[in-house]
Amino acid sequence: MRLTGLLGIEHPIIQGPFGGGLSSVALASAVSNAGGLGSFGAHVLHPTAITGLVRDLRAATTRPFAVNLWVPHAGEGDPIDPTPHIARLAPLYRRLGVEPPALPVAPDFTEQVDALLAAAPPVISFVMGVPPRWVLDSAHDKGITVIGTATTVDEAIALERAGVDAVVASGSDAGGHRGAFLRPVEQSLVGTFSLVPQVVDAVGSPVVAAGGIADRRGVRAALALGADGVQIGTGFLATRESNAGDVHKAMLHSDAAKVTVLTRLFSGRTARGIHNGLVRELAAHEDEVPPYPVQSGLMQPLRRAAAERGLADYVSLWAGQAAPLTASRSAKDYFKELVGT
Amino acid sequence: MRLTGLLGIEHPIIQGPFGGGLSSVALASAVSNAGGLGSFGAHVLHPTAITGLVRDLRAATTRPFAVNLWVPHAGEGDPIDPTPHIARLAPLYRRLGVEPPALPVAPDFTEQVDALLAAAPPVISFVMGVPPRWVLDSAHDKGITVIGTATTVDEAIALERAGVDAVVASGSDAGGHRGAFLRPVEQSLVGTFSLVPQVVDAVGSPVVAAGGIADRRGVRAALALGADGVQIGTGFLATRESNAGDVHKAMLHSDAAKVTVLTRLFSGRTARGIHNGLVRELAAHEDEVPPYPVQSGLMQPLRRAAAERGLADYVSLWAGQAAPLTASRSAKDYFKELVGT
Repeated sequence: MRLTGLLGIEHPIIQGPFGGGLSSVALASAVSNAGGLGSFGAHVLHPTAITGLVRDLRAATTRPFAVNLWVPHAGEGDPIDPTPHIARLAPLYRRLGVEPPALPVAPDFTEQVDALLAAAPPVISFVMGVPPRWVLDSAHDKGITVIGTATTVDEAIALERAGVDAVVASGSDAGGHRGAFLRPVEQSLVGTFSLVPQVVDAVGSPVVAAGGIADRRGVRAALALGADGVQIGTGFLATRESNAGDVHKAMLHSDAAKVTVLTRLFSGRTARGIHNGLVRELAAHEDEVPPYPVQSGLMQPLRRAAAERGLADYVSLWAGQAAPLTASRSAKDYFKELVGT
Repeated sequence: MRLTGLLGIEHPIIQGPFGGGLSSVALASAVSNAGGLGSFGAHVLHPTAITGLVRDLRAATTRPFAVNLWVPHAGEGDPIDPTPHIARLAPLYRRLGVEPPALPVAPDFTEQVDALLAAAPPVISFVMGVPPRWVLDSAHDKGITVIGTATTVDEAIALERAGVDAVVASGSDAGGHRGAFLRPVEQSLVGTFSLVPQVVDAVGSPVVAAGGIADRRGVRAALALGADGVQIGTGFLATRESNAGDVHKAMLHSDAAKVTVLTRLFSGRTARGIHNGLVRELAAHEDEVPPYPVQSGLMQPLRRAAAERGLADYVSLWAGQAAPLTASRSAKDYFKELVGT
């Protein structure tokens, strides 16, 4: 298989990277040790933390693994007056008894990349855009494999032209943040079933199907559509090793997971999660939400307090549309079911 | 196979029904004669036209075929003052040199059903809701097979409980009108890849995967997800026998078909079509659009004039997300490719 050969893994199964503290070294290494490619979402990590992360992953597995970063969008990080946005969230801060936060300073992408290239993990994956030329060149010079993530055929073509080694075709079924970068996200919501064969036809690189794959049937179907492998997020988020909170994991295989929505309310970037109380309460303000990372910073104290107290209505319950197919178990057992052994 | 046995067909492939004049007896009969199940969307037809339609289909094929109706939603057809809506469309009427229409009287559902049951086609399929008990009972008394259409797992369960013989699981990849009926459509947009295995797990009846299936790979993948068969709309809409206009067919395999959107602008009910000039021009008025069938009636003169003059920007270019995989050819040749002969 082209993908397993490229990545040096046994089974064409990639564990999707989660940001915002949901990834864990235990999960990524369990997947890599089982013969897949474990991933860790590092976009919120500062450079020194990235260095430590790669060290920890190397200590936990001798097999290939991936570290994921977000490609910044133009204007991201420009100063924004948070006053009106804090005012809008004030009732929620009061209700949960937390203080409005000081706006966090997001890590600098170039410094993240420098730290990551120095640490040289076997694979780096990107979402949200085309990694800059110098990043691809440096990675390839060091023998690092680079994976890009596309939500449309045109994005897949742009990533391949830039020189990535494999393309994840991330359908709108997928949970968490949408990585659209060429068109507005609402014009880049192509279902996995439709997206995968079109990307397969459009690029020569190995294609990884993502979004809505949660069991053996999904793996088989993705390969039937022409994909070289799959990337599974929500299914691994539900395993014991992931760093998702108990309330989040419980919700993934609850009836509530049948209804997911795309919203900017939690982070300022469109992401898919379970429809909960906060989404209902703030739905009318969807268009007023400031961009990432401002909204993400403003929501952080609410997320943290809610996670500590098990309040599902205030947590960002990232979930793909196949969440009801997931179960609580070890990553190793789940991986065995996926590969049919 | 359970589906082929139930329907008395050779291959588990249903041609999706199109409303609004896009269906044709030539297409439905070609698909049935090739060994699949041809369908004709009759929701805009008055009872006498339905009687004639079933007669014409019987003359064109001795094999099973389906006629499709929309289950009306509560309040549909209540009187609405069209004045502000006509005013909003006035610039478009002027630009295309057409008169604002008199509001059409939509066919009565009960009368449609009575005519259809009397004509007794082999299969009746429904979208938009659960057909009433008396319809299911009468159909079964006459040996007519009934297919229901679900956009969520809960809808599939409701249809099975009501007694339909097979369930179409219509993922958000699908083109044309969304059939959501238990929750708002924006909470009922589950990608085909995610929806199909969950419906398969939830119901005992045969499950037909729909949305995003356009070639042999899609058929195989749908079966791998556990479906008993597939329903293909856009792929058959692109064939020579369909009644779609030339401009519509040409757009289906143009680059423009890469971007489809869900909009109420053309009919008052949410439907997926290619993003064109009218959608761009009226996007800001999406929430002001009156419900079906009022908006559909108000748009009719624009649709007609645009189709006659080949103005792609004013036609409702219904298309599923796999539209770029379609091609212009005969239904028979397309069917052969789907079944791999």
